[in-house]
Amino acid sequence: MTEQYGSIEAGGTKFVLAIGNKNLEIMERISIPTSTPSETIPKIIEFFKKFNVCAIGLGCFGPIDLKKDSPTYGYITNTPKIDWQMFDIVGVLEKELAVPILFTTDVNAACYGEYVAGAAKGLSSCVYYTIGTGIGAGAMNMGEFVEGFSHPEMGHMIVRKVEADTYEGNCPFHRDCLEGLAAGPAIEKRTGIKGQEMGQDDPTWDFVADYLAQAIYNTTLILSPEKIILGGGVIKQPQLLPKIKEKFKQLLNEYVSYPHIDEYLVLPTLGDNPGTIGCLALAKKKQTLSN
Amino acid sequence: MTEQYGSIEAGGTKFVLAIGNKNLEIMERISIPTSTPSETIPKIIEFFKKFNVCAIGLGCFGPIDLKKDSPTYGYITNTPKIDWQMFDIVGVLEKELAVPILFTTDVNAACYGEYVAGAAKGLSSCVYYTIGTGIGAGAMNMGEFVEGFSHPEMGHMIVRKVEADTYEGNCPFHRDCLEGLAAGPAIEKRTGIKGQEMGQDDPTWDFVADYLAQAIYNTTLILSPEKIILGGGVIKQPQLLPKIKEKFKQLLNEYVSYPHIDEYLVLPTLGDNPGTIGCLALAKKKQTLSN
Repeated sequence: MTEQYGSIEAGGTKFVLAIGNKNLEIMERISIPTSTPSETIPKIIEFFKKFNVCAIGLGCFGPIDLKKDSPTYGYITNTPKIDWQMFDIVGVLEKELAVPILFTTDVNAACYGEYVAGAAKGLSSCVYYTIGTGIGAGAMNMGEFVEGFSHPEMGHMIVRKVEADTYEGNCPFHRDCLEGLAAGPAIEKRTGIKGQEMGQDDPTWDFVADYLAQAIYNTTLILSPEKIILGGGVIKQPQLLPKIKEKFKQLLNEYVSYPHIDEYLVLPTLGDNPGTIGCLALAKKKQTLSN
Repeated sequence: MTEQYGSIEAGGTKFVLAIGNKNLEIMERISIPTSTPSETIPKIIEFFKKFNVCAIGLGCFGPIDLKKDSPTYGYITNTPKIDWQMFDIVGVLEKELAVPILFTTDVNAACYGEYVAGAAKGLSSCVYYTIGTGIGAGAMNMGEFVEGFSHPEMGHMIVRKVEADTYEGNCPFHRDCLEGLAAGPAIEKRTGIKGQEMGQDDPTWDFVADYLAQAIYNTTLILSPEKIILGGGVIKQPQLLPKIKEKFKQLLNEYVSYPHIDEYLVLPTLGDNPGTIGCLALAKKKQTLSN
C-alpha cells in the first residue's frame, strides 16, 4: 500500500487539511472554519479517519509550546483566541488519530515546504516571511528549524520610523513595530482603503517597503540565510518587491557580499501551497524519525 | 600520549595562540602582534612546531569566507587591514602545520566556548555578543553555528535613534547602526573621554544600553535563543547590564515568555577565555570529524 501523509494548517480563520503521497503531491484537501475546539476538532478527526495516514505535520498559529520537555508541549498557549488558549492540540489529535504528529508554527511549516521542495530546495538555510493580516517568519539553519526557548516572532522587530509616515502603528504590544506598521490592517488604517484596493502609487507602499526592507536587512545580518522568501497577501502587490529590493540594497551599502538580489529575495515557488507541502514533508520526516 | 589541541584567536591587534588538553584546559598560551602575514605567520608556525597538536581551532577576525565550496574558502576577505586582504590563512597554516583546522569567526569561537563549557553549557542554542572596539556576535542553533551565505554581522543592525542622543554615529557603512552608536569608539566620540574613564552616570550609558537592548530584543525575536551572553570590554562597565535588562523588558512588554532575565542575559562564565576554550573545543570537534 502506498504511504499517505497528513497535513494540518491551523490558521486563525480556517484549518486546511490535506492528504499527500510520498512525493509530496496533494491528493485531497479541504478547508474548515476555525471556530471552537469542540466544533473544529471532530471535523479534523472525521476527515483523517477516512484515510490511513502514517504521520501528520501540523503547522499551527501561535504562540505555541514547542519545548519537548515542557509540561505544556503541543499546546496553543496565550493566543487572543480565547477558546484555543492552553488547548493541547497535539495531545488531543495524537490520542484520537493514533499517529505521530510533528508540531511547529504555521510559518515554520511554510518555510519547510519551500526548503524541501520550493525556492530554497538544495540550500542549507532560508527564511520565509509571511506578510498578511500579521507578519511572521520561520527559518531553517543547517537543516534544522531556528528555535530555542521558543519559536521566532520576527514580525515584532523594531524598525526605524520613516519620517514622512505619520501613522502611529497598531500593535497592541509594541505599537510601531514591523507588524504594527506594515501588516495588512496597518496599511488599511492609514487611508481607510484596503491594500488590495489602494493605488499602486499610494505613498503607503513606500513606507511598507521601507519597513520590510529594514526587517530583511536585520534578518540578513543576524541569520545570514542563503535565501529569503516573501509570502502572504500583502506581497502580492506587484510594486512592493522592487521597492523592497531597492531599499535593502541602500541599507546594506555593500557591507556584506550576499547572493544576487533576484536570487536572494524571492516569492514562494510553491504558490499558495508552501504550508500544505511543508506539513506533508514534516509528516514524512516524523515517520522517518519514528521508525 | 595525551592528545593536544591548538587554539588560534586571530584578532585585529593580536593573535593569541594556545595549547590545550582533551579537558579543554589551557596548558600554554602566548600572544603575538598582528602585523603582516609575512611577519606573523612564521611566529605561529614556530609556536605550534614545539607541540604535537592533532587539530587546531581558528577563530578569525572578519570578514572571512566560510563557504566550503568556495574557491576562496579559508580566506580573510575584504578586511580594512590591507596586508591580510584575500589572505588564505587556513590554506597556509594547514600546509605548514599539516593538521586539520576548523575555521570560524572570532565571535563564533567565543560563542562555542560558552556553549560547550560556559554559560550555555547543556543548552541547544545561544548567542554571544562582544561589545568592544566593534560589535559582533556568533550564534548556535541546535548544536550548529548560525550561518548561511556567510557568517552573521549582528553589529550592524538597525536601531532606533534615542531622541536625546545627538551623536550622529561613526560606522563608515551605515553611520548610525548599532556599532556606529554603541561600540567603544562611538562612546568615546560623544564626550572625548574613553569609556573606561567616563563617569557611571554619564547619559551616554543610557543611550548605549538602549541600543544594546534593542539589538537583544531583535535577536530574541529572530533567533529565540535560550541564552544571550554579553562579552567584550564595554560590558565590563557595571552600570550597563542592569540598564540593558530594564530597557529590554520594556521593549518586549511581555509579548513572549522567555527565561528569567537574570538567566537569559548574562556575562561570560569563562571570563576572558571563551575564545581560547572555544577554539580548543572546535579543534577537538574537528579531530572527531576527521577520524
